[in-house]
Amino acid sequence: MKIALASVNVLLGDWEGNLKIHQARVKEAAKAGAELVVFPELSLVGYSPLDLMSRPSWAASATRQLDSLHAWLEREFPQLGVILGTTFSVRSESLAPRGIANCAVFLCGKTREVRAKTLLPDYDVFHEMRYFDSASGLGEEYRAPISFGGKKLGILICEDSWEEMEIRGQRIYRLNPTEHLARQGCELLVNLSASPFDRHKRERRRAAIAADAKQFRIPIVYTNHFGGQDDLMFDGDCFLMHSDGTLGPQKLEANNDLLVFDEAKTAPKKNVTAVSELAGLEKMLVTGIRDYCWKNGFQKAVLGISGGMDSALVAVLACQALGAENVTGLIMPSKFSSSHSIEDAEQLARTAGFHHHHVPIKMPHATMAMGFKPFFTGLPDDTTEENLQSRLRGVTVMAFSNKFHALALATGNRSEFAMGYATLYGDMCGALAPIGDLFKTEVYELARYLNRQRAWIPLRTFTKPPSAELRPNQTDQDSLPPYDLLDACLELLLDRELEPNDALPLLQGEFPQADLALLERIHRSIRLSEFKRKQAPPILKVSQRAFGPGRVYPLTCHY
Amino acid sequence: MKIALASVNVLLGDWEGNLKIHQARVKEAAKAGAELVVFPELSLVGYSPLDLMSRPSWAASATRQLDSLHAWLEREFPQLGVILGTTFSVRSESLAPRGIANCAVFLCGKTREVRAKTLLPDYDVFHEMRYFDSASGLGEEYRAPISFGGKKLGILICEDSWEEMEIRGQRIYRLNPTEHLARQGCELLVNLSASPFDRHKRERRRAAIAADAKQFRIPIVYTNHFGGQDDLMFDGDCFLMHSDGTLGPQKLEANNDLLVFDEAKTAPKKNVTAVSELAGLEKMLVTGIRDYCWKNGFQKAVLGISGGMDSALVAVLACQALGAENVTGLIMPSKFSSSHSIEDAEQLARTAGFHHHHVPIKMPHATMAMGFKPFFTGLPDDTTEENLQSRLRGVTVMAFSNKFHALALATGNRSEFAMGYATLYGDMCGALAPIGDLFKTEVYELARYLNRQRAWIPLRTFTKPPSAELRPNQTDQDSLPPYDLLDACLELLLDRELEPNDALPLLQGEFPQADLALLERIHRSIRLSEFKRKQAPPILKVSQRAFGPGRVYPLTCHY
Repeated sequence: MKIALASVNVLLGDWEGNLKIHQARVKEAAKAGAELVVFPELSLVGYSPLDLMSRPSWAASATRQLDSLHAWLEREFPQLGVILGTTFSVRSESLAPRGIANCAVFLCGKTREVRAKTLLPDYDVFHEMRYFDSASGLGEEYRAPISFGGKKLGILICEDSWEEMEIRGQRIYRLNPTEHLARQGCELLVNLSASPFDRHKRERRRAAIAADAKQFRIPIVYTNHFGGQDDLMFDGDCFLMHSDGTLGPQKLEANNDLLVFDEAKTAPKKNVTAVSELAGLEKMLVTGIRDYCWKNGFQKAVLGISGGMDSALVAVLACQALGAENVTGLIMPSKFSSSHSIEDAEQLARTAGFHHHHVPIKMPHATMAMGFKPFFTGLPDDTTEENLQSRLRGVTVMAFSNKFHALALATGNRSEFAMGYATLYGDMCGALAPIGDLFKTEVYELARYLNRQRAWIPLRTFTKPPSAELRPNQTDQDSLPPYDLLDACLELLLDRELEPNDALPLLQGEFPQADLALLERIHRSIRLSEFKRKQAPPILKVSQRAFGPGRVYPLTCHY
Repeated sequence: MKIALASVNVLLGDWEGNLKIHQARVKEAAKAGAELVVFPELSLVGYSPLDLMSRPSWAASATRQLDSLHAWLEREFPQLGVILGTTFSVRSESLAPRGIANCAVFLCGKTREVRAKTLLPDYDVFHEMRYFDSASGLGEEYRAPISFGGKKLGILICEDSWEEMEIRGQRIYRLNPTEHLARQGCELLVNLSASPFDRHKRERRRAAIAADAKQFRIPIVYTNHFGGQDDLMFDGDCFLMHSDGTLGPQKLEANNDLLVFDEAKTAPKKNVTAVSELAGLEKMLVTGIRDYCWKNGFQKAVLGISGGMDSALVAVLACQALGAENVTGLIMPSKFSSSHSIEDAEQLARTAGFHHHHVPIKMPHATMAMGFKPFFTGLPDDTTEENLQSRLRGVTVMAFSNKFHALALATGNRSEFAMGYATLYGDMCGALAPIGDLFKTEVYELARYLNRQRAWIPLRTFTKPPSAELRPNQTDQDSLPPYDLLDACLELLLDRELEPNDALPLLQGEFPQADLALLERIHRSIRLSEFKRKQAPPILKVSQRAFGPGRVYPLTCHY
């Protein structure tokens, strides 16, 4: 059977636009000779509609859209099998029925069959129990095989293949949807996914699918979304996993291409070389910026460039996303800015080819400080004065953003956001924080990788000590531990959510000198800066435990 | 049986502090002769811990805390019955077990009995399916009656009494926990709640409990939390509902008092006068501000005062929460500020008795505008220049906040937040938005109420047309429909989540002239300003569909 796996880059809730995207993909697949086209999870509506699904108009709109596509398919491609994702109104016997399921719909001529997702993830960025009924409460017909092209097809939706998922070391699912379909004699399984990117998701995903294919001796085809949606990116991954757990046809890199193959004729391939993990990271960050911009009506971006690494990396990513001609960097020196900072920022702009302007904040800073003087008399300088600089830069970036309809990019990294080493309404200004989920050590890692392709970033930016330059001769290490040590601590406290005393022995393996006081200080900084992150821009997610909607911590608390 | 209903005002995750609060309440209850003390839902940990519960250390900490309280009770008050709320590790047979339940624990001497919540709300601010297993999957022992004082007690936890809850016109629960307990012969039901405040919650709550009491002919006692937790407030409601659905002993107003009564001896009371709904609203907003401040380590607050109604109301609420001596209002005129604005702001500060300073933004504004001039040449003035004023005020408020460790209060209202009629990093600056969930018409309503108690707010603030004063002779009605019409539209589009064409006939009942174009324009403004609200301060929730964690809309979308 010739199968087309069709990633899509859709816009949430754009009924008309997403319908057209599906039609275009179907035409393309038919032209390539496909007999079956497989779209990703919720392909017609986008992932995730969240509370849009609680709107009274939702169900009828989704039905209208599906009916419209079905009528078109029946008319234009009556023989073609299509499997797509959408929401569907259902009647569930579960304890707390939501009335909607996350469904895969099989369309072929007049035929319409609806299958539903069984395992509903409700951790990290997933909140699916809030919205959906599980197939397990809907009756067997929602989990039954589908006959097509002489084969029994079984349908899985994303999490259905992650039955071994654990939280706090415990498996969180009792059912195994793959096993259920295997028992019913399915000969080919189809997984429709909306599987958000993180740095190691691709390997985990393929391992999970390979394990199931091998265990039940059934080939599995897999289709993921492509593109950015707020803080999430999707890598468009598509592949055939053979029944021996080896990969058949697959995408080697993240893109929105159609993958077409004859499922019966493919042999296992050896020695295929996927692009490197860092190339994938770069591609996804660029996609995240680009899609956030165009989906929200922006062609241009603006950001502050300091001569430091964070803003350099964001500028380079923005140039790749939008074209250097659409990026403006603002150099905004204060009285504490070193000459090398200004030179490095200028050199970056010249090398990367984006516009840059000098908009010093010295005068506004002096004027404002003078205005505050009568009220601050006798009080020592403190973070107030440091924040004032950062906030005047924020005001400047926002003025350019407003005037030129350019999306403001925040340049903070994950280590800073974790520690609250960032100024709210200052350097945290922006519509999007592209590298806010990269630790500082990862920022350097990615920057080094990019500079190996092309000398984007001045060498001195790599070699000088990181500094916010908000007071004379300041470096980050005046306030923070060295970044390799800090990031190792953060990994234990944030990603693994350990308490300081549980983290200490693990840390001491790599850093024998580290002590409990250090971990407690970092732990405390994380807690006390929760309020800043509450007001942070969306942060492109590349870790498993990113700040943002997937990490729901109270602001007021003691832990 | 003499019963003490014990509201508590706890701090999330403060194991030691919350334990002490329970001990103090128990002593107080025992002194008053109580035989049974009932605390609210999750009383020992606070509501809601959210992802704190996913920390590997959580379960052990909760158990240690409970063990510690139990040992103390057994030693100090061996005869006393205590029912409290906490999380408990469980083994569930549900499809996706979380391993934790939202439990009520009955302690008396050596006895410890654990009961679990059956109905897990997962709409609005509630995300309980993400965290908890339902009692329905845990086995009958988690829903069984408890014998105490010669009576069979049945335990309900908050939502368990809201079995008739509907979403999109559909009942969302299949089980009725009250009926389940009634069938087992319970003679008294106990509801432990963490029921967040909204303007009409008290009536809805009491109606729900009364209906169940009457239907099953069983008296029900009810205990709620008191105090503020981020965007939520709890009113400390406590009462006995007789088996005929009439109220027995109850709190007439929101407070953290202990309510003690002899359940057998009380007769239905007639003609009790509860405080007015507006008094309740005022009390809860004041509590929300006060608790956010002290729980986060602030004694003082600072805000911009413009002479307009929003900032006046916030200032008055802040004075009541923190004492006028701890409140500072900043008058920050620009070249567009009218003299009456400044006078009204001054008069407000004098009447209410809080500090005020004049910190004009004219000079910084001129300096910054001059710095931008080379880049903005030939471009017309637009929102850039308006936002600049607002942002320089934001910078000023934050400088005072930083320097004096005073919590910055944002003064925006719900109508503005809905329409995006607010400047990100400008007037949206602040740690908390106390009136961000009041429509502009409600702001006036509450202000009029407050002014009837005491002439806090200058009369002219009531009579002049609302204006942001960001350009010459501007009034809000240049950009927005009249507020009575706007708020009526917003109620349909936000609270009822209708599409414009579904809202139109409902709107025309009150506003016959209203047309679809108006509703569509407002609808579009709501959607396009989602990104601003993403970065807004926590908004004290007083409506049923507040902006904040209870309304999870995507930023990038088309609806």
